[in-house]
Amino acid sequence: MLPQSKFAELPAHAKRVPGGVTHPKGFVAAGVPSGVKKRHKLDLGILMSQVPAVSAATFTGNAAAAAPVRLTRETSDCSRLRAVVVNAGNANACTGKQGLADAARMRLLAANGLRLPVEEVAVCSTGIIGVPLPMEKIEPGIAAAAHAVAARASEQFAAAIRTTDKYPKFGALDVALDEGTVHLGFSAKGCGMISPNMATMLCFVTCDAVVPAAAWTELLRVAVAGSFNRITVDGQESTNDTVIGLCNGASGVEPGEAGLALLGEALDAALLSLALSIVADGEGSTHTVRLAVTGAGSAGQAEAVARAVANSPLVKTAFYGRDANWGRIMQAIGQALGREGRQALPARIAYEEVVIVEHGQPAPLDATAQQRLAEVMHQPEISVSVALNGPGAEATLYFSDLTHDYVTLNAEYST
Amino acid sequence: MLPQSKFAELPAHAKRVPGGVTHPKGFVAAGVPSGVKKRHKLDLGILMSQVPAVSAATFTGNAAAAAPVRLTRETSDCSRLRAVVVNAGNANACTGKQGLADAARMRLLAANGLRLPVEEVAVCSTGIIGVPLPMEKIEPGIAAAAHAVAARASEQFAAAIRTTDKYPKFGALDVALDEGTVHLGFSAKGCGMISPNMATMLCFVTCDAVVPAAAWTELLRVAVAGSFNRITVDGQESTNDTVIGLCNGASGVEPGEAGLALLGEALDAALLSLALSIVADGEGSTHTVRLAVTGAGSAGQAEAVARAVANSPLVKTAFYGRDANWGRIMQAIGQALGREGRQALPARIAYEEVVIVEHGQPAPLDATAQQRLAEVMHQPEISVSVALNGPGAEATLYFSDLTHDYVTLNAEYST
Repeated sequence: MLPQSKFAELPAHAKRVPGGVTHPKGFVAAGVPSGVKKRHKLDLGILMSQVPAVSAATFTGNAAAAAPVRLTRETSDCSRLRAVVVNAGNANACTGKQGLADAARMRLLAANGLRLPVEEVAVCSTGIIGVPLPMEKIEPGIAAAAHAVAARASEQFAAAIRTTDKYPKFGALDVALDEGTVHLGFSAKGCGMISPNMATMLCFVTCDAVVPAAAWTELLRVAVAGSFNRITVDGQESTNDTVIGLCNGASGVEPGEAGLALLGEALDAALLSLALSIVADGEGSTHTVRLAVTGAGSAGQAEAVARAVANSPLVKTAFYGRDANWGRIMQAIGQALGREGRQALPARIAYEEVVIVEHGQPAPLDATAQQRLAEVMHQPEISVSVALNGPGAEATLYFSDLTHDYVTLNAEYST
Repeated sequence: MLPQSKFAELPAHAKRVPGGVTHPKGFVAAGVPSGVKKRHKLDLGILMSQVPAVSAATFTGNAAAAAPVRLTRETSDCSRLRAVVVNAGNANACTGKQGLADAARMRLLAANGLRLPVEEVAVCSTGIIGVPLPMEKIEPGIAAAAHAVAARASEQFAAAIRTTDKYPKFGALDVALDEGTVHLGFSAKGCGMISPNMATMLCFVTCDAVVPAAAWTELLRVAVAGSFNRITVDGQESTNDTVIGLCNGASGVEPGEAGLALLGEALDAALLSLALSIVADGEGSTHTVRLAVTGAGSAGQAEAVARAVANSPLVKTAFYGRDANWGRIMQAIGQALGREGRQALPARIAYEEVVIVEHGQPAPLDATAQQRLAEVMHQPEISVSVALNGPGAEATLYFSDLTHDYVTLNAEYST
């Protein structure tokens, strides 16, 4: 089932249901073991629409984008994709020309197996960086997966795209529109912007509504902007991050303008819940913090302040220690604003409804407020608001804390 | 004695000698216990030139600069300072108008005690943020320190400015010029850009050469640019960072142009050795890494790439784990370059002389090279070079690794 978070409440017209990417009509999938992961674990997935679909895709902004990202972005038709082939355990990143050739070979084999033109197939990889793909394992894996595609294979697909995730991340929604019910399916992986060399967040979305390509692209763009682009575990952007959405119209239900807005609401909440489950699964994470910055002088300033606070190791360790250490938040804000930004201070800082700083100075807390603050710091999900002294630009980010386990996971992993 | 580092070799004309800020002629100092620190520890220091001096000062760029920084920067004459009063244990930061009044009171009391005009006195504070200064302790402390100033009090002064430093950081140099021997004295504190709420790096430099104010300002600017502005522990800039240099001419030796250059060389090496001792003392740090980025398209790009690598928690934990994980360096470089920066890759990456990446792909290492690489990763000081594929702008940074002790120190400290 789709993960739950108090920060991502579903609208009333959307209902969590069992299943994943094959819940919407006309989608099939598979997950098979190719031998790249040890102990016969599932590590190669295929997802396909049985009928033509419109699609949208967003990719990492990293200059060192991996071969599958470059291949798909530059040579597939990302508005008409029908299928995705994914391998886990090897990211095919920093692998040069051989890497591009291997990604193209993966796409060709999947397209042949699924009887699709290569332009309608996307390729994703996740795993270790800088090691050539073991094609002698990948090739028979793709053949097996293409042969195995079936409805109700959401769980196998979800398992095949995981690397160091502590739990699988997938789910489905029934979305009731005036025009009829449409279905959404989801499968994601990731537990940090980048895991211990097992890089990447991936997310696949399926939908059976009848939606024009441009509208689908816009729906997905907005949903990604409010979810995967608003989370940070360690501030690191992977070489392989990819979100792909396929929408095939197989339900026959064609939403009008209002229906598209309702579909968008459901999509927004679902992607945010998946993004938050990535933060909560962030390596060693014990708290997820929602940080809302308001009152900034510009969108850029709001974003800079939010990133500075969310990525400060001092702020992150304070949440791990359950300490409402506003001095560290103030220091990070001040660093982001720089010397010329002094007039944007003083800030108001609140943890949930407890105002702890007013006009840039500590607000006196009575015993009840202190008790409440201690409770807040023990919550797994904590809202923090920072109000700057400016005209009103805003930015919201979700971040994890920094723990001993983060250091252990990332120091003990060895190339 | 001045700390040692392979990255900061002294020029032949400079000699490490015992002592600190009172080693140059005409300087006196004191360190006394005011009661702000527990157990009667030294926590209030005064440093003064007995004769008029020229001076230079650099301050934090943080918008939330503390009261003593704002007071000194805005209302003292930073080219004609003769004295500094410093308290440790309370940063007088985020303390509003009362904080400014308290800093002004500190300055007035020190000036009166030392019989100097207030404009010739600087104020520095370091310690906890957001708590008003306990003036009932500070005031008698200043009176006692002003009364106690003496030559040979370098160690007391160095002790009085410490907070969570594991070791004191001070030293002195005799610098042999053609015009005669001049003397430099140093006292610094800091073990992170900001410690567990015990903020700040401070550094005080004394010199008895005869140097015009403009030349002294330039010497100090260059030395700070190549040292304190080139280090990062956790990427956090404190609210109180201050470097102050006093130069009083008491040696009677007036360097010519060549002499000033030689004096500058000694000053550069000394401040770099102090800055590196702050990195090495960085909370829980086990390695100091010198990162040299070359071949960038612009100075800004070189700086952005260097900062991205040096502040990446994944890169930092890999050094802690003694793993030459070049994939994480590549990921951080790619993130800094962004999607449009692809042509600046491929990069060459070397750990000391061992080239581990060539043209953006792993370079094959024979058994000897692998053995050497393992040795390198066990060194306390490691040089890493990153050559981008551009015209040649450069940036160098020194950074610490990220360890379990960093998390412990910063999570267990409680406000």
